Amino acid sequence: MTRVLVTAFEPFGGETVNPSQQAVQRLAADTAPVGVELSTASLPVVFGQAIEAMRAAVAAHDPAVVLCLGEAGGRVAVTPERFAVNLNDAPFPDNAGCRPVDEPVVVDGPVAYASTLPIAEMVEAMRAAGIPAAKSSTAGNYVCNNVFYGLMHLIATERPELIGGFVHVPYMHEQVLHRPDAQPSLSIEQITEAVLIAVKISAAAAGERRHIIAAG
Amino acid sequence: MTRVLVTAFEPFGGETVNPSQQAVQRLAADTAPVGVELSTASLPVVFGQAIEAMRAAVAAHDPAVVLCLGEAGGRVAVTPERFAVNLNDAPFPDNAGCRPVDEPVVVDGPVAYASTLPIAEMVEAMRAAGIPAAKSSTAGNYVCNNVFYGLMHLIATERPELIGGFVHVPYMHEQVLHRPDAQPSLSIEQITEAVLIAVKISAAAAGERRHIIAAG
Amino acid sequence: MTRVLVTAFEPFGGETVNPSQQAVQRLAADTAPVGVELSTASLPVVFGQAIEAMRAAVAAHDPAVVLCLGEAGGRVAVTPERFAVNLNDAPFPDNAGCRPVDEPVVVDGPVAYASTLPIAEMVEAMRAAGIPAAKSSTAGNYVCNNVFYGLMHLIATERPELIGGFVHVPYMHEQVLHRPDAQPSLSIEQITEAVLIAVKISAAAAGERRHIIAAG
Amino acid sequence: MTRVLVTAFEPFGGETVNPSQQAVQRLAADTAPVGVELSTASLPVVFGQAIEAMRAAVAAHDPAVVLCLGEAGGRVAVTPERFAVNLNDAPFPDNAGCRPVDEPVVVDGPVAYASTLPIAEMVEAMRAAGIPAAKSSTAGNYVCNNVFYGLMHLIATERPELIGGFVHVPYMHEQVLHRPDAQPSLSIEQITEAVLIAVKISAAAAGERRHIIAAG
Repeated sequence: MTRVLVTAFEPFGGETVNPSQQAVQRLAADTAPVGVELSTASLPVVFGQAIEAMRAAVAAHDPAVVLCLGEAGGRVAVTPERFAVNLNDAPFPDNAGCRPVDEPVVVDGPVAYASTLPIAEMVEAMRAAGIPAAKSSTAGNYVCNNVFYGLMHLIATERPELIGGFVHVPYMHEQVLHRPDAQPSLSIEQITEAVLIAVKISAAAAGERRHIIAAG
Repeated sequence: MTRVLVTAFEPFGGETVNPSQQAVQRLAADTAPVGVELSTASLPVVFGQAIEAMRAAVAAHDPAVVLCLGEAGGRVAVTPERFAVNLNDAPFPDNAGCRPVDEPVVVDGPVAYASTLPIAEMVEAMRAAGIPAAKSSTAGNYVCNNVFYGLMHLIATERPELIGGFVHVPYMHEQVLHRPDAQPSLSIEQITEAVLIAVKISAAAAGERRHIIAAG
Repeated sequence: MTRVLVTAFEPFGGETVNPSQQAVQRLAADTAPVGVELSTASLPVVFGQAIEAMRAAVAAHDPAVVLCLGEAGGRVAVTPERFAVNLNDAPFPDNAGCRPVDEPVVVDGPVAYASTLPIAEMVEAMRAAGIPAAKSSTAGNYVCNNVFYGLMHLIATERPELIGGFVHVPYMHEQVLHRPDAQPSLSIEQITEAVLIAVKISAAAAGERRHIIAAG
Repeated sequence: MTRVLVTAFEPFGGETVNPSQQAVQRLAADTAPVGVELSTASLPVVFGQAIEAMRAAVAAHDPAVVLCLGEAGGRVAVTPERFAVNLNDAPFPDNAGCRPVDEPVVVDGPVAYASTLPIAEMVEAMRAAGIPAAKSSTAGNYVCNNVFYGLMHLIATERPELIGGFVHVPYMHEQVLHRPDAQPSLSIEQITEAVLIAVKISAAAAGERRHIIAAG
């Protein structure tokens, strides 16, 4: 069994739902993929606290894979992120009212970390399932990137056996049905299926990695 | 039984599929909604010829409702159109290589016609089904508007008992999966469901109208 | 001398300036183009009242040309409008708090009017001056279209000797400098120059028209 | 005197001009800012060769500041870049027909470098001059990022006394006047002024830095 921790975020920015959270609730309610032991956590959209909550979930569940999810309103596709950058720079306040400007996530941390999830493979598999998907080169500088950087820093400094990364999902249809501005969206079923694909591929990658280490 | 004619367009603009055509093929392959006798036609993306093909289909099927469909790449929602305007002004050549600039659809025709389909009700029903939908105030000046104007002119001048209109659909996922630019899309299942909703609501409106006329 | 009335709108939608108003103030402060007697008016962003204010300005100045301007935030170019439609459908309340939904501008008025300004020539001249410009096929369904329709209805029913139309201008740079979302904009100098071009070309067209009528 | 090297790119992607090149030609034709000795270079839009040409220009001119410029079509503002990432992943072929996919710029190089130019100050000064400007967190994965990463790697490994970075500029008006799709643009005068501001602020930063080092 490969233990996979999937985290999502609470609603923010005036929204009443967060598609990442909706997708994770659906995953958790369903049977886990074969060979996967799934645990989930919902993170507050608060700089710093999001990292603490993620670290607590990692400590509690001791996973082999951590897949963090977040909402990227305005995107047309599910977008696995390549890079977490050492920068908090919020265009609007977080759910605790904080708005850091040009601050590091980790003082003296490296400029950026790369995702260690197989994101090219994820994108290919999502597209093969008919779901719009693309690799992204920026996770922004808000709480999503904050927790992504926090995760990769945790892996780099304390848990090198872990693989992890971040996937942004677009708005779900329900969020845009009554907006006066035209915003792209996907169905929550598609978003959930994309996340499930990401879980399976990440778990397989973790399994192979363990095998290589064991054999090495 | 209410006879409903649904028209779609062939692929154009370098695309190999047209979501309007895919949706109509799926509708035609399925059982028609109760009380609806469905006929379909595929129109060429050629100014003028599209109108001729639409008129031929109307003559052949003698419908009570004509619902014309077309692709609006770049839109995020299914968009029933409000207005057909008396203008051909092509940003790029049609499938016959013609590119009319600032020409009327019908010389001395009125500036515009309004759709006679219940588009507000359509949008409401599509949204209730969880499908992004919005009323649109421009069908463009390409072949879609050309056939829409041609239809409304036919109704105004020769077939006042008919109701008709136009619905634009976004790209379907398959069209955008490998595009380097980020383009919004919906699944073909959602597009087809939206069209089915438009058919049902239009048929019901035609039925009520007949009832009122009969009773009047 | 050709009398040209140019109208602009007050700020709306949370903005503190309206580029149409800024451009008209600059035009009014400068020497009028040769052969043009320029008058201006600032209209409230209120359905109906905007039409009343426009009509009062027409009555007061007795122009040969009426050029109405408005802001179209999100557009990348100056866009002379082709069509005014008989529809008020506000995505958000006007400055008086009213939000008409699916109502006609003029009960039993025609579906649409076409601009009688030489908009193709305007676009060509603006582009020749290096200013992004394009013809538009929808002026929306907010107060801009409301006053545009009101103007064309006035011309059609009471002042057939008048020519008139509407030009939308994008945000000016000052409006977007500190927005967190990326919105296109032009400099107020460019917007003003585009409006001046529109004034000159419209005045010339009115002059030719008078000449033709006088000679006819 | 502070020596500042500004690089631009040749046209690419089907364009006949590149606004970065146009701006640099205008800068070079004008008097340099007080205290600045300006040199310029035009780089080929070819992975690897762009870095070689930039390195040759640095060797030839021995600058204290290197400011690399490139075109980012579709952006609404001048965007100083924060991060260069160790990734070549081209959405379309470069001018030599090469299209690297998921390759590092420098094998075993760090994941990313941060710009060492004062980009927050640049953005503030550009905005104060009325020019739309914003910090960007992704320079993409095409030749722009390639040369940006190559520059920061050169600084990190061979020329620690140098400061450097990258600024993306939007389309200039001439590139979009006749495009059928709506693309944002700025005037070449504004783009040139923004680059001049970037040069002055970078030169001042280099001067202060030298002062601090000399005093240290």
